Amino acid sequence: MDLKDFCYKGEKPDLKKIPESAYDLGITKEEKEKYVEKTEQNILRIAELQDKLYAEGREGVIIVLQAMDAAGKDGTIKHVMSGVNPQGVHVISFKQPTSRELEHDYLWRVNQALPRRGEIAVFNRSHYEDVLVTQIHGMEYGYNMAERCLKDGSKKFYEKRYKQICNYEEYLYENSYRMVKIFLNVSKKEQKRRFMDRINDAGKNWKFSAGDLDERKLWDEYHELYEEIIEKTGTKNCPWYIVPADQKWYERYLVSEIVIKVLEDCEPKYPELPDEEKAKLAECKRLLEAEEN
Amino acid sequence: MDLKDFCYKGEKPDLKKIPESAYDLGITKEEKEKYVEKTEQNILRIAELQDKLYAEGREGVIIVLQAMDAAGKDGTIKHVMSGVNPQGVHVISFKQPTSRELEHDYLWRVNQALPRRGEIAVFNRSHYEDVLVTQIHGMEYGYNMAERCLKDGSKKFYEKRYKQICNYEEYLYENSYRMVKIFLNVSKKEQKRRFMDRINDAGKNWKFSAGDLDERKLWDEYHELYEEIIEKTGTKNCPWYIVPADQKWYERYLVSEIVIKVLEDCEPKYPELPDEEKAKLAECKRLLEAEEN
Repeated sequence: MDLKDFCYKGEKPDLKKIPESAYDLGITKEEKEKYVEKTEQNILRIAELQDKLYAEGREGVIIVLQAMDAAGKDGTIKHVMSGVNPQGVHVISFKQPTSRELEHDYLWRVNQALPRRGEIAVFNRSHYEDVLVTQIHGMEYGYNMAERCLKDGSKKFYEKRYKQICNYEEYLYENSYRMVKIFLNVSKKEQKRRFMDRINDAGKNWKFSAGDLDERKLWDEYHELYEEIIEKTGTKNCPWYIVPADQKWYERYLVSEIVIKVLEDCEPKYPELPDEEKAKLAECKRLLEAEEN
Repeated sequence: MDLKDFCYKGEKPDLKKIPESAYDLGITKEEKEKYVEKTEQNILRIAELQDKLYAEGREGVIIVLQAMDAAGKDGTIKHVMSGVNPQGVHVISFKQPTSRELEHDYLWRVNQALPRRGEIAVFNRSHYEDVLVTQIHGMEYGYNMAERCLKDGSKKFYEKRYKQICNYEEYLYENSYRMVKIFLNVSKKEQKRRFMDRINDAGKNWKFSAGDLDERKLWDEYHELYEEIIEKTGTKNCPWYIVPADQKWYERYLVSEIVIKVLEDCEPKYPELPDEEKAKLAECKRLLEAEEN
């Protein structure tokens, strides 16, 4: 499998047909160790690239993670990004908007969370919640907005939002940012298994809430909406990836590959000093060596 | 004169022909008092509208002020906006970008400065400096951006920025904000008079710096660029106004008219309670009246 096979730049995915399990891609259980090892190597490579990205300070990188509950967002962040110098990496979890956030436009908080150039931001959920959960639950009418913004009805409202999001992401790309969006594609069966685990294991109880079952009931609606969102907001410069998420070891491997890809696209290099600065370094070296102790 | 005559929604203005002086519009010196009085009434009206805007919390308003030096931005803000409850009004002066700001995209700091819905932000200079002073001085190459963002050359770079700005302002409009952009159009002759005044009056010395003369030398370049910017970024929903600025009393009158116009467009209303809430109020009244003292 090539990374490209998981990448969406405007095509509509058919989530009914896209495998959630690595095994449906011809990968076998016996290969698990191989992928775990590859992931470990990838993490070293990510750390190396990130060090250069930070030193150079030219491009900001944003990794968006979206998924159904229990698809493994938190674990992925923990495992894939933990080899990286935290000085240059920030994880931002987008929860229900605060009252202060609701008093602004929905991209306002995304802007607050933008990395500096040279840094990486991982978005645990994102502005995509504002076309996803809000659309499922009809929450756009809960915001206190002028009539003129809402009068065209929900469908047009979200068509506009897709366009707004595309414009915004393209703007970021044109201003030295790169964003990739990853949908961790877990199966309904595997979600059930993980929910049961969260209920049975007291140490994991905190990860579960009864409301999760209400959302699970809307599985098909969510999947249909994800298909639409991925189609409408997947672009050449800010693509979506759909990653099979039923096996954590394969999912994390793929995410590490995606992160490497976006970092390599940045072609980060340690800044090289101009000749006169190099001459100054030589002079500094001479001065240090001439010191008595 | 109608306010519409000063409004630009995509037309290219010819600053060589547009009067900087109210007297060239057929207004006489004898009318000064009349306009001063009108402005005072307008300020009361602005305060009234702003109170409703704040109570309702539905639309955010952004007034952008751009101008050549000494055109009267600060004085206008002081005189036109000072009748307004400062709780709902914020003035943001955009100076040279800080190092932190330069590490982000150029609209990042604009986003930080956005008013909440229900509030008014006055931008003393704005993101338009990022297509203006940077373009005049070729400063886009001073930012630390990826090659891909700069490779098309300055002309295309700024064409993109115009589009980015239009997209951004339209996005804000679609998300319950209104922005108007005002160019205070002072004449070169009047600027000289005000500069001389700043140099001669010790109490005004702080307003002047020798660098102001360097910028004055670029008068024609700035004016040509303003024509282009006003053409490319004046839109139906976020128009530009070109306000003759040689007479402060007329300029302030016009700005107050523009502010009223944008506030009236918001149609702000005090929120009305639903019937059951009104019933609660009646009950509260009864309880208060029943108290012994």
